[in-house]
Amino acid sequence: MGNSTIKTAEELAESFREISIAEFFEKNRHLLGYENPTKALITVVKELVDNSLDATNEARILPEIKVNLKQLSENRFKIIVEDNGPGIVKEKLALAFGKLLYGTKFHRLVQSRGTQGLGASGAILYSQLTTGKPTKIVSSTGKDIHTYELVIDTVKNEPHIINHNSEKNVDGWHGVIVELEVEGRYIEKEQSVLEYLKQTAMTNPYAKIIFNGPNGKFVFDRTIKEIPKQPKEIKPHPHGVEIGILRRMLKYTKSRNVSSFLTNEFSRVGKNSALQICKLAKINANTKPQNLSHEEIERLHKAMQSIKLIAPPTDCLSPLGERLLTEGLKKETGAEFVVAVTRPPTVYRGNPFQIECALGYGGNLQPDQQAQLYRFANKVPLLYNQSDCALTEAATEVDWRRYNFSQSQGQLPQGPLVILIHFASVWVPYTSEGKQAIAKYPEIIKETKLALQDAGRKLGRFISGKRRLLEAQQRRGLFEKYIAEVAEALSKITNKSKDNIKTKLETMLKKENIIDEAIKETEENGENDEENRTEGKD
Amino acid sequence: MGNSTIKTAEELAESFREISIAEFFEKNRHLLGYENPTKALITVVKELVDNSLDATNEARILPEIKVNLKQLSENRFKIIVEDNGPGIVKEKLALAFGKLLYGTKFHRLVQSRGTQGLGASGAILYSQLTTGKPTKIVSSTGKDIHTYELVIDTVKNEPHIINHNSEKNVDGWHGVIVELEVEGRYIEKEQSVLEYLKQTAMTNPYAKIIFNGPNGKFVFDRTIKEIPKQPKEIKPHPHGVEIGILRRMLKYTKSRNVSSFLTNEFSRVGKNSALQICKLAKINANTKPQNLSHEEIERLHKAMQSIKLIAPPTDCLSPLGERLLTEGLKKETGAEFVVAVTRPPTVYRGNPFQIECALGYGGNLQPDQQAQLYRFANKVPLLYNQSDCALTEAATEVDWRRYNFSQSQGQLPQGPLVILIHFASVWVPYTSEGKQAIAKYPEIIKETKLALQDAGRKLGRFISGKRRLLEAQQRRGLFEKYIAEVAEALSKITNKSKDNIKTKLETMLKKENIIDEAIKETEENGENDEENRTEGKD
Repeated sequence: MGNSTIKTAEELAESFREISIAEFFEKNRHLLGYENPTKALITVVKELVDNSLDATNEARILPEIKVNLKQLSENRFKIIVEDNGPGIVKEKLALAFGKLLYGTKFHRLVQSRGTQGLGASGAILYSQLTTGKPTKIVSSTGKDIHTYELVIDTVKNEPHIINHNSEKNVDGWHGVIVELEVEGRYIEKEQSVLEYLKQTAMTNPYAKIIFNGPNGKFVFDRTIKEIPKQPKEIKPHPHGVEIGILRRMLKYTKSRNVSSFLTNEFSRVGKNSALQICKLAKINANTKPQNLSHEEIERLHKAMQSIKLIAPPTDCLSPLGERLLTEGLKKETGAEFVVAVTRPPTVYRGNPFQIECALGYGGNLQPDQQAQLYRFANKVPLLYNQSDCALTEAATEVDWRRYNFSQSQGQLPQGPLVILIHFASVWVPYTSEGKQAIAKYPEIIKETKLALQDAGRKLGRFISGKRRLLEAQQRRGLFEKYIAEVAEALSKITNKSKDNIKTKLETMLKKENIIDEAIKETEENGENDEENRTEGKD
Repeated sequence: MGNSTIKTAEELAESFREISIAEFFEKNRHLLGYENPTKALITVVKELVDNSLDATNEARILPEIKVNLKQLSENRFKIIVEDNGPGIVKEKLALAFGKLLYGTKFHRLVQSRGTQGLGASGAILYSQLTTGKPTKIVSSTGKDIHTYELVIDTVKNEPHIINHNSEKNVDGWHGVIVELEVEGRYIEKEQSVLEYLKQTAMTNPYAKIIFNGPNGKFVFDRTIKEIPKQPKEIKPHPHGVEIGILRRMLKYTKSRNVSSFLTNEFSRVGKNSALQICKLAKINANTKPQNLSHEEIERLHKAMQSIKLIAPPTDCLSPLGERLLTEGLKKETGAEFVVAVTRPPTVYRGNPFQIECALGYGGNLQPDQQAQLYRFANKVPLLYNQSDCALTEAATEVDWRRYNFSQSQGQLPQGPLVILIHFASVWVPYTSEGKQAIAKYPEIIKETKLALQDAGRKLGRFISGKRRLLEAQQRRGLFEKYIAEVAEALSKITNKSKDNIKTKLETMLKKENIIDEAIKETEENGENDEENRTEGKD
């Protein structure tokens, strides 16, 4: 053939190569949230702060997190994030930061902020990519203080340690400090480091966050002193486990037979259920898991789906709760009225999850604009990719006209409204490793709509109550205007003192019975409006 | 501490684990485009067909691709994709399909459809996840025919071969056949397998694609017999190389000194330029690349950016060209008027790329709706995540009112309009591994806007010409209506024969001078409209 641009199968074979995950993200840094300098700055801070919150939570320590952001030149920043968490033992410290897809959370089913082992190492990758500089990591678990300077060897996906030293820990300090330099751009508008920290403080009111930024210091003090209950790790539930996962679990299990495999590796399966499943699948319960044929695995999978079992435990989830949602949103937005809804937990692809939402209305909110949407996943604010998120899709699919809002097709409603949605799960299906939007699994969209409709109904009642109140006030105003004439007329008819009648009328109005009744009417009203009946269609 | 939910640093240390990339995508299958059954079916077909087109292209074979999609039950499908490509040698066959992040294209700078080594293996992962079944792969390079049945061992990210056999190849057949079973949902509307194949045929008119679907057979025959020129592999250009990449290259290069490193591993760097760079960076050109200090690497990087060099070669790109764009869009949409623009190549993050666009107007297109947008990356249609794509952002940021369209803020214009955009590059920065949208790098958005504005101006001229034509026709209509009266009046004034005058007037109209002049005026008009002057602001 001779022409160098034509490749035979043999020539092509020589080009086959394994790609290291670090090389992959070096080339695809935008997947991790680093496609522009503004977003890059937010992503670095977010990844480090999320890690700090997770670590302090697991160790039951009230978090105090310091974020220092120093502008070195027009587009160059130094970021230092320090926490008071349990620290990381020396043996794992360099790996935890210098190796991608390495972490403590991926293989566990429990609600946490990070999951993929890509956050901090991704930030370090971006730092070295744009500045060439190593990252400095300081940590202590209460014993010696260790300091590492490292870069990631992207070809091997391993930390390359440039410097390591340790010193005595006089004060018994524990925690982690990460210091790195990046290319970035600092703003304080909507999508910004400051906004991320503000929203983080709103959903993590037990955390103290101190931000030292280019324009001064911001302190987000804790408003609650108790750490929320730490969610519990769970095992997968037999319903919803995918056949491919089952197959993998059977291959790698240490259980000696199918029956103990089922009881050991799944939640809600006791000895009896296990035997029942085996019987239904026509499998000998004593079979070695590795010895099942493909047909037997298929039957086992089917039997696991069809048997009746208690729903998965839900203490693996840590929702915010209606009180915190209401207070947080009121404080944050200055809304006049806030209503919050926490749905019961449910399941997608076998993963327990829970939707919460809050609606803020009136007060300081602007009436003539599209509603604002705040999205959170496991208490972490999502600032980007709003249009590509399951939570947004749910919010735009709700028919807000039922709750007295105007709304264009496929858009958020118009009005003095703010919508907050929190998705809590043992596994958040982000649309990309940058973790800014939730993938559109049908179960998630449906559940979010139900939450919003519930809250929407309550808000709708408040709004129509408010309208009635307004009308009552207008009636009263009208009455007040003519009170002198009415008193005079009544005086003529009844032959009683005009002044006396006037005083009585005025007292009557002051009691504001009309208004009280309007409010009362509003609160009792509407438990059976039309939507409850049509909800089954969603 | 005793409480099992509280974790010390030592306890946490035990949870650290490495995550295999296959496990990662097993849990994050939506990242690969498998978040719902409809999209999953499209993604499987797309990944396999893209691979087939790449392989035939590289071997300079006119592609003939057969796609069989058989519905087995309500949500279960068998997919078989067969190509006439060069085949894959036996030694690499199982790895090419049974290992994620393994491929021929990631480490090369050349325009191709696949890049990441995640496409076919991702489809197999989804197949085994939802059906538990192995995938069958048949291939020959012209010698023996090899058949493998395999699954991916996700813990190890390795193919687990269940069956392998080989047979004599009597007919000298070469190519690849992939056969797998998946959970899916089949539709034929907008986002569908059929639409993907239709758009693929439009941008790959030299390919023959035969689709055997649940509702019958569709044949997309080739309309061109020549395979487009195979783009050439290039080396990175010194401008735009990131410092972190430079550092990695210096560490792993086989070149003995900095000077030969620069000439061997970069394009457009000759001996002289290399020495000039070293001098500027104050580095001895004979230094071993691995021995450079961090400060020296920083200086080298700076010098590489600042030195004047020829722009990167652009034969690594394979644009569609204005003729193909125009014909394709006309045929596909039945538009009355099509204008196409191919921009000169440019660079983002050191990667050459090129934007092409075409606008179709009128004809069969509906006047009262939002413009349709067709997006392509390296000739592959993008069907999902339109709202989150750099190409969409560019299209909505263009001020279409300048070209006689109405447009709401942040939306596509309204009117009988279809917009096609093709992004061609040696590296497509997809927003996720599912490869449906392009990340919003500022250079890409800017370049796309320039292409659309250029095409928009041409279309705007056509539209205002069309309007002038319409007005001319209306004037003529009016004149025709009164021709009898005018002739009578002229006859009275001039004392000439009324019939004679009338005939002359009619002849004049038939010559259609008015219309011809309107058209001529349109075509010559507007080379200097106001936008050319303000474009610098973008």
